[in-house]
Amino acid sequence: MDRIIERALKGDPRSIARLITVVESENDRAKEIMKKIYPHTGKAHMIGVTGSPGAGKSTFLDKLISSMMASGLTVGVIAVDPSSPFTGGAVLGDRLRMQQHSLDPGVFIRSMGTRGSLGGLSRGTYEAALILDACGKDIVLIETVGVGQSEIDVVKIADTVALLLVPGMGDDIQIMKAGIMEIADVFIVNKADRDGSERVVREVNIMLDLQTGKDWRPPVIPTVAESGEGVELAAGALSEHREFLASSDEGRRRKHRRLRLEVEEILKREIAKIAEEAWDSRIGGDVLEDLASRRKDPYTVADDLLSEFISR
Amino acid sequence: MDRIIERALKGDPRSIARLITVVESENDRAKEIMKKIYPHTGKAHMIGVTGSPGAGKSTFLDKLISSMMASGLTVGVIAVDPSSPFTGGAVLGDRLRMQQHSLDPGVFIRSMGTRGSLGGLSRGTYEAALILDACGKDIVLIETVGVGQSEIDVVKIADTVALLLVPGMGDDIQIMKAGIMEIADVFIVNKADRDGSERVVREVNIMLDLQTGKDWRPPVIPTVAESGEGVELAAGALSEHREFLASSDEGRRRKHRRLRLEVEEILKREIAKIAEEAWDSRIGGDVLEDLASRRKDPYTVADDLLSEFISR
Repeated sequence: MDRIIERALKGDPRSIARLITVVESENDRAKEIMKKIYPHTGKAHMIGVTGSPGAGKSTFLDKLISSMMASGLTVGVIAVDPSSPFTGGAVLGDRLRMQQHSLDPGVFIRSMGTRGSLGGLSRGTYEAALILDACGKDIVLIETVGVGQSEIDVVKIADTVALLLVPGMGDDIQIMKAGIMEIADVFIVNKADRDGSERVVREVNIMLDLQTGKDWRPPVIPTVAESGEGVELAAGALSEHREFLASSDEGRRRKHRRLRLEVEEILKREIAKIAEEAWDSRIGGDVLEDLASRRKDPYTVADDLLSEFISR
Repeated sequence: MDRIIERALKGDPRSIARLITVVESENDRAKEIMKKIYPHTGKAHMIGVTGSPGAGKSTFLDKLISSMMASGLTVGVIAVDPSSPFTGGAVLGDRLRMQQHSLDPGVFIRSMGTRGSLGGLSRGTYEAALILDACGKDIVLIETVGVGQSEIDVVKIADTVALLLVPGMGDDIQIMKAGIMEIADVFIVNKADRDGSERVVREVNIMLDLQTGKDWRPPVIPTVAESGEGVELAAGALSEHREFLASSDEGRRRKHRRLRLEVEEILKREIAKIAEEAWDSRIGGDVLEDLASRRKDPYTVADDLLSEFISR
């Protein structure tokens, strides 16, 4: 495994893929790998790209990757698919489209499920992003498919979040209901050759103008990903946001918040494992029956369980 | 507080509202209240109602509540709003519309934020549902607004999940991407007087027919909530699903899974609190700097923290 790590750190795609697979599947070895990987991280620009289904994320990413590579940057992509049995076909199509880049030497693309955390990012997503960072990718793009928790979680691990909007997705104001407007650092209004795109740009700008007290005013950039129009502007805006973070209090706050989240996330996993073991070994059908019949309540059961392995 | 609990258990709306407020805001008293409430729970039918923004959930719920009340049932409603600063207006309108029922003696409506858990259900949602259950509501409806984690979390606390679809929401197959198709027990195709509704009904049915190995085949019910058409059929389907659960292995499995989730959820909260305290008291700026400079890795920091308060 040490040799694989060594080769991955030099950028060998097969070894990188191997590491991600191990980290995705095995918990104990994952930790050892990550401890060795971690010192090499912190260099990449991690960019979350999110938006409703149908916003044209795959095409946009396709063109964005080309534009970044043309500037001499190496790119890693993590595409998060919901693991729905229904999605196979549609998502696979998107993936295949994007995979044309996987033949390029500078780009590494990896699809990940959301196993074990319906709607959210899977356990390994962040680790995979860190691996790509450590292995020399200048840019790590994290694409979330569908609208869900994954789009909201991505803000926790990305430096910069781009939100793709499109004209004509029903009542535009509804987009705001999803609660993801406030997490975006760059707004992309894709399919800007369609009717109504100017209105979307205007409405988003109005809303952003209402926000006060922020040092970074998210730009709103119209693109036509199909033809590539505006994509370089978008790439520029993403990179400007990174420069902003590097030189601002907001950047330091975000970095510290993320570091704290990392530790807390790992803590939660470890503790969840302990709690599960405790449940399995000490709590059986009897307790379930007691709960079902309301002879016991879950608060007391949890307290009892906790006091067994927590020393304050 | 004991007197408030007593009055709430007798169905007094003000006391119920008071309990929910306390449970929503205070952690320690919340636990004491819930321990007293819990023995009285387990009687209500908890129904999650979910679907994309614009599917007409509020109107549907409005009519569903009327239909249930006409059958002599008491109804409690928990509406989960994303706490986005952008949503205020639109959501408030929906709420006000539904609030017309709050004057009816048999129905209790409560809006809850998603504070503290972007996109997901807020801490107090499940507790509020349990309180309504304990306080004598025959039906507890949990409405999630917007598309997000809340829609997926609701399956964890509801007996029955209804998913509202509408014709014409862009490419219909996209709906499947959201990963919420497989959590629904009853499909409602609302605005069924619109073009394309038959196609949605047909497509959903085809997909459901592809699913095998399930004892419950979700019905697909066209409704026009605006006029009330089909709403009674929908109410009937929800109640049939409850009867199915009462008499099937699937029902017992779900009950046990939920009980286990309850305990685990409480455990996680308690542990998160402990981890946060540990972070605050034992980890300071130094560790953050060590992490930022990659002198330490978060896995080791988490391990160190864990070993301080966990005894295995």
